[in-house]
Amino acid sequence: MLEDKNQKPLNELEELGEFGLIRHLTQNIELKNKSSVKGVGDDAAVLDYKEKKAVVTTDMMVEGIHFDLLYTPLKHLGYKAATSNFSDVYAMNATPKQITVSIAVSNRISIEALDELYDGILLACEIYGVDLVGGDTTSSTSGLIISITAIGEAEEKELVYRSGAAENDLICVSGDLGGAFMGLQLLEREKQIFNENPTVQPDFSGYDYVLERQLKPEPRKDVIDMFREIGVKPTSMIDVSDGLSSELIHICQQSKVGCTIYEDKLPIDIQTITAAEGMNLDPTVCALNGGEDYELLFTVSLDDYDKIKDQRRVSVIGHITSDKGIYQLVDKSEQVHAISAQGWDAILKKS
Amino acid sequence: MLEDKNQKPLNELEELGEFGLIRHLTQNIELKNKSSVKGVGDDAAVLDYKEKKAVVTTDMMVEGIHFDLLYTPLKHLGYKAATSNFSDVYAMNATPKQITVSIAVSNRISIEALDELYDGILLACEIYGVDLVGGDTTSSTSGLIISITAIGEAEEKELVYRSGAAENDLICVSGDLGGAFMGLQLLEREKQIFNENPTVQPDFSGYDYVLERQLKPEPRKDVIDMFREIGVKPTSMIDVSDGLSSELIHICQQSKVGCTIYEDKLPIDIQTITAAEGMNLDPTVCALNGGEDYELLFTVSLDDYDKIKDQRRVSVIGHITSDKGIYQLVDKSEQVHAISAQGWDAILKKS
Repeated sequence: MLEDKNQKPLNELEELGEFGLIRHLTQNIELKNKSSVKGVGDDAAVLDYKEKKAVVTTDMMVEGIHFDLLYTPLKHLGYKAATSNFSDVYAMNATPKQITVSIAVSNRISIEALDELYDGILLACEIYGVDLVGGDTTSSTSGLIISITAIGEAEEKELVYRSGAAENDLICVSGDLGGAFMGLQLLEREKQIFNENPTVQPDFSGYDYVLERQLKPEPRKDVIDMFREIGVKPTSMIDVSDGLSSELIHICQQSKVGCTIYEDKLPIDIQTITAAEGMNLDPTVCALNGGEDYELLFTVSLDDYDKIKDQRRVSVIGHITSDKGIYQLVDKSEQVHAISAQGWDAILKKS
Repeated sequence: MLEDKNQKPLNELEELGEFGLIRHLTQNIELKNKSSVKGVGDDAAVLDYKEKKAVVTTDMMVEGIHFDLLYTPLKHLGYKAATSNFSDVYAMNATPKQITVSIAVSNRISIEALDELYDGILLACEIYGVDLVGGDTTSSTSGLIISITAIGEAEEKELVYRSGAAENDLICVSGDLGGAFMGLQLLEREKQIFNENPTVQPDFSGYDYVLERQLKPEPRKDVIDMFREIGVKPTSMIDVSDGLSSELIHICQQSKVGCTIYEDKLPIDIQTITAAEGMNLDPTVCALNGGEDYELLFTVSLDDYDKIKDQRRVSVIGHITSDKGIYQLVDKSEQVHAISAQGWDAILKKS
C-alpha cells in the first residue's frame, strides 16, 4: 500500500525529471501490434489502421473520487484504469490496440509506487494485447490523476452502437451485476472500522470475488470473441460502468425505444447477495444501480435467441419495447416499477 | 475571471449531473472531418483514416502547475489546451483532425466557467479544422485538470520524426522564442504586486505580444502548409514546448548527432528583449530555456537551403554536426558554450 512508501525523500521525482521518469516507466515497452507503427518517444505516436475503422475512448480517474489509495493497491489501480478503457472499446464490438497514459502525481509519491501503477497498466496491456504508445507525466498539487485514452480497431460492419436496439430485441447482460459495488461497500466499511480502531484487522473472508470485482475488473473480451464464434452481432451494446439502469436508459434513449426487464432474470452472484443482505441493502438495487461491473449490456435480435440462450456468460434479462421512454422492471411478485437513471453516484450518496 | 463566478451555488454541477453536463457542453458540436465517423455519445468515437497513418498525442494540464486561474481567462486556457496538442501533431508534419477532452473540476466551478473553457477549446477546433469527438468529465477534489488527446493524419511518406537529423543539416526554427516565458514572468510579477496591494492596477502596456504568446499560443499550421508549398520535407522536427535547448537535445539524441547554433541567429522579438532586460534576465537564456512557444524546431537538408532561406516564418539558427552528444552555442563574441537540457522547469525554479 502507498503509505509505506511516502517516507521517500521529497525530491526523488524531481531528481529524475519528467523525461527521466518517462524513460524509466516506458523503457521495457515492446510494441506488439502491427497497427502500432511508432510508440513513446516522439511528439506523437503513429498508428496504421489500414482499411479498418479506429475507435477512440478516454477516461479520467481522480484520487478521492474514483479510488482511495488507503485500500487500492497501485498495481490494481493501474490494471483497472487500463481495463475500464478496454471495456469501452469492447462495447463497440471492437478490439483495443493502443493506449496513451497521462498521469499527474504529487512529489510525495515514490518511483516504486509509480512502477507498481505502471506494472498494473502494462499487465493489462499484455493480457489484452494492447500497446502503450504515449502519454504525459506531470506534477499534481494534490492527489493522483490518471487519464487513459484507448484506441481500438474494427471492421465497419462489425461496429455496434448504442442506437440500434429495436422492438422485441432481447436484452442481455454478461457475467453478473452489483459485485463491484458491494466490494466497494465492504472496503469502505473496513476503512471506517480501521479509522475508529486501527488495531482491528479487516475481515474480508468469503468476499474475495466481490473485492476482485471492485479492485481488478476484467473487461469482457471473451464475450466479443463469443459473438464471432456463434455468429451473433448485437443490435446495440454498452458497457456497464455506471450501473445497469443508467446504461439501459442510454441504449433506449439512443435507440428511441422502451424496455422491460425482469428482476428474477438479473444475474447476481451469491457473494453479492450475502454482502448486500449483511449490510441491509437490496441486492436487486445493487445490481441495478451499482457501477463498475464492466459487463456488457447488449441487445440481440429475437432470431438470435437460440444462439445466445445457452451461453453461460450471458443472461437474457428482458426485451425492448416500442414504448419510447418507458423503462420497466417487473419484480418477483410481478409488480411493475419504473427504472430511473440513478446510476452509481446517486446510490453512493445514499449509502 | 474565475473568482467572480465562484459565488454560484455549490451543487449546480451536481444538479446537472455528468451526462447532463456532457450534453450541455457538446450539444452544438458538428463533425466536420470525413475521418470523424461518430463523435460524442457512444462508448467510443469512430474514426476512419483509410490508407493514411494516424498520429496520437496527449497532454495533461493541472491547475497550480501549468496555469493559474488568477490571470488565465478560461477561454484562453481552453484554447491553449487544444492548440498545444495540435502543435504536437504538426510537429509530426501531420494534420490534427480529432480531439478528446477529459476534465476534472471541483464543484466550486460554475457552468458558465466551463462553457468559457469549452468555448476556447471549440474555437481552437474551428480555426484548425478539428472535431471534438469524445471525452470524460469528472469531479476533482482540488483544482481543474484538463487532459486532451489529439489525433491527426498524414501520408506515411510525409511523417517527420525526431530521429532523422543528419550531419550538415540546417537547424531551423519558426517564429520567435522566449516570448511565452516572458509573458509568464510579467503575469507572475503583476500577481505578486496584486497580492501585496490589490488596489494597484496591473501594468502590461506595450507587452500585448508576449502576453498573447503565453495565454493564447498558435500552433504553426502555416509552417506545415509552407513545407508543402515550397516542396521541403524536414529531416527531423519537434515542437518547442519545453524550451529550445531541451528540444534540440531531443532531436540530437534521437538522431545520434551533435549541433552548433549561433546566438546572433536566435529569433527573439523586441518585446521579449525589452521585458527580459526590464527584469534583469538575459533574452538569450529566455529564448534557449523558456518553454511554451509552440514553435517548430526542425532540420532540413543543406540542399533545401535556397528554398528555406527567404521564408519569413523561419530562421536558420545553426547546423547538425557529427559530434554525437556535443551541443554547442556560439555566442555573439564567438565564445562556445555547451547547451544543457535545462528546459522550462529549471529556469522557472531559478526565477
